[in-house]
Amino acid sequence: MDHNFGDRLVEAIREKDAPVCVGLDPLIERLPAALLKEHSIDPEQALDVRTSANLGALADAIFAFGTAVIEAVAPLVPAVKINIAFFERYYSAGIRAYHRLVQRADELGLLVIGDVKRADIGHTSAQYAQAQLGSLSHPGLQEVATPDAVTVNPYFGSDGIQPFIDLARETGGGLFVLVQTSNPSAVQVQGIETADGSTVGEKVASLVQSWAAADGLVGDHGYSCIGAVVSPRDLESTRRIRALMPNCIFLVPGFGAQGRSAEEVALCFKPDGTGSIVNASRSVIYAYQKEPSGGDWRGAIESACRDFVSAVRAAARP
Amino acid sequence: MDHNFGDRLVEAIREKDAPVCVGLDPLIERLPAALLKEHSIDPEQALDVRTSANLGALADAIFAFGTAVIEAVAPLVPAVKINIAFFERYYSAGIRAYHRLVQRADELGLLVIGDVKRADIGHTSAQYAQAQLGSLSHPGLQEVATPDAVTVNPYFGSDGIQPFIDLARETGGGLFVLVQTSNPSAVQVQGIETADGSTVGEKVASLVQSWAAADGLVGDHGYSCIGAVVSPRDLESTRRIRALMPNCIFLVPGFGAQGRSAEEVALCFKPDGTGSIVNASRSVIYAYQKEPSGGDWRGAIESACRDFVSAVRAAARP
Repeated sequence: MDHNFGDRLVEAIREKDAPVCVGLDPLIERLPAALLKEHSIDPEQALDVRTSANLGALADAIFAFGTAVIEAVAPLVPAVKINIAFFERYYSAGIRAYHRLVQRADELGLLVIGDVKRADIGHTSAQYAQAQLGSLSHPGLQEVATPDAVTVNPYFGSDGIQPFIDLARETGGGLFVLVQTSNPSAVQVQGIETADGSTVGEKVASLVQSWAAADGLVGDHGYSCIGAVVSPRDLESTRRIRALMPNCIFLVPGFGAQGRSAEEVALCFKPDGTGSIVNASRSVIYAYQKEPSGGDWRGAIESACRDFVSAVRAAARP
Repeated sequence: MDHNFGDRLVEAIREKDAPVCVGLDPLIERLPAALLKEHSIDPEQALDVRTSANLGALADAIFAFGTAVIEAVAPLVPAVKINIAFFERYYSAGIRAYHRLVQRADELGLLVIGDVKRADIGHTSAQYAQAQLGSLSHPGLQEVATPDAVTVNPYFGSDGIQPFIDLARETGGGLFVLVQTSNPSAVQVQGIETADGSTVGEKVASLVQSWAAADGLVGDHGYSCIGAVVSPRDLESTRRIRALMPNCIFLVPGFGAQGRSAEEVALCFKPDGTGSIVNASRSVIYAYQKEPSGGDWRGAIESACRDFVSAVRAAARP
């Protein structure tokens, strides 16, 4: 097997001294006006993709923006997270742009997390796993570069996850299982109280830890190729959930636009400063919208990324 | 708003006297040899998509097979369920084939359920909803026909579902929320016992019913545009879950290849024979593999579909 994903991620974070990743969730209507103009896109029309004659032009603009973001942040961060929903939105043209962007990030030496949140019964999850992690070991295959790791949904239990684990083991890939998500209504399911006084989220955390600790999946640094998506709620539950998953790296969403502070995410780290990678998306990639100038949008993204890295770096070393 | 999806489905089932749908989960390696030959595909090579030079040819073969299945079953059933994982497998070429197949099924007068199992936080689910249900009211847009209804995952709670509901309300589309899935490990999460002596699956069922019964979503026949994926386990739990969701049509997977009998699915129906649509995939679409002749594969599919319809029809009227 190739190099364990847990090790790869820990080492990439150490190299950049930055336990963060930048999330790419690009919306056409928020792209810089100058970039839209270059692609001959009328922002008024583009707001409704259904009336646009040319999905290809929209996908190209999204790809160009994504490339610019990746180039701006590549010297600063170890990884990017690309959310496929914002590409799937443009149908086959968007999916092509997604895989091209994965390829571009890979060329710049970044680890790529495909935020796909897939899962199904085993027979079907095997297809998703091949689609999303499968061609990792075949970089020569054009336009179908796949991420180093992907996010997956636990609602099916282990059957839905196993095909991803099998591929990760084979290719050095990784996965992050949703445990505690950042949206307000997450508690409706994840917060259900269980018969033993725990919650569904904590039960899923224990399940994920049991998968993560399986034979051969834990790397030299003590982390598995199976991590977890964990959005901190309150201090006590974050401490509990960190303790429940000693072998899992947390992918922590919600820094910035979704309102989580550096202090809140600090408890997702272990005392040695490892164990989490914190994501910011909108607060970094749309940083230029806060500045009245609006001219140097690439510079604004880079500057916001630097601030983000500093804030999380400080939080990780309390 | 357009015609309510619950009404549309009830009426389509009544018209064909067949509370069933046929699921399309096409694997290249199981396609009829004659069809592969027509597309110049060597089955030995095609088994590993990663070594194939031509993803487009594979996607074309899947599309041709899907079209043949749809043509064979269209006179017999009201709906088909197309699982996007088996198309996503061929990257952008597969996604194009998926939407073309949705279009073809629509032209033949079938309702189409896109089995996509998407969900994310609200901001992202809005993108998935647009991608998967969005262009319903814009049939003129080439190659991006979208299904009449889609399957969605409840792990995020209502935020993850709301964008789909909003679009369904606007366009006459529908959704089926995963409640109880058919895979062996489903109980690891869905079967967790809750503090009030229920299970996570039953809690999700109550949640889905509360969404389904919202103002303006229930049609003239008493069913909402929000249904549920429910695979029956045992008689008692199936009765309970049927009672918990009076306004939801159940999409019942697992008939045939996944081992559920007509007797087991009977309790998913209400006493008047409404309330469920039962899916069979592999047992119908690969029916030709059971026959030594292998010659008339279209005939074998049609014949298996007739048997399937008869079995479920009998079960629905106990």
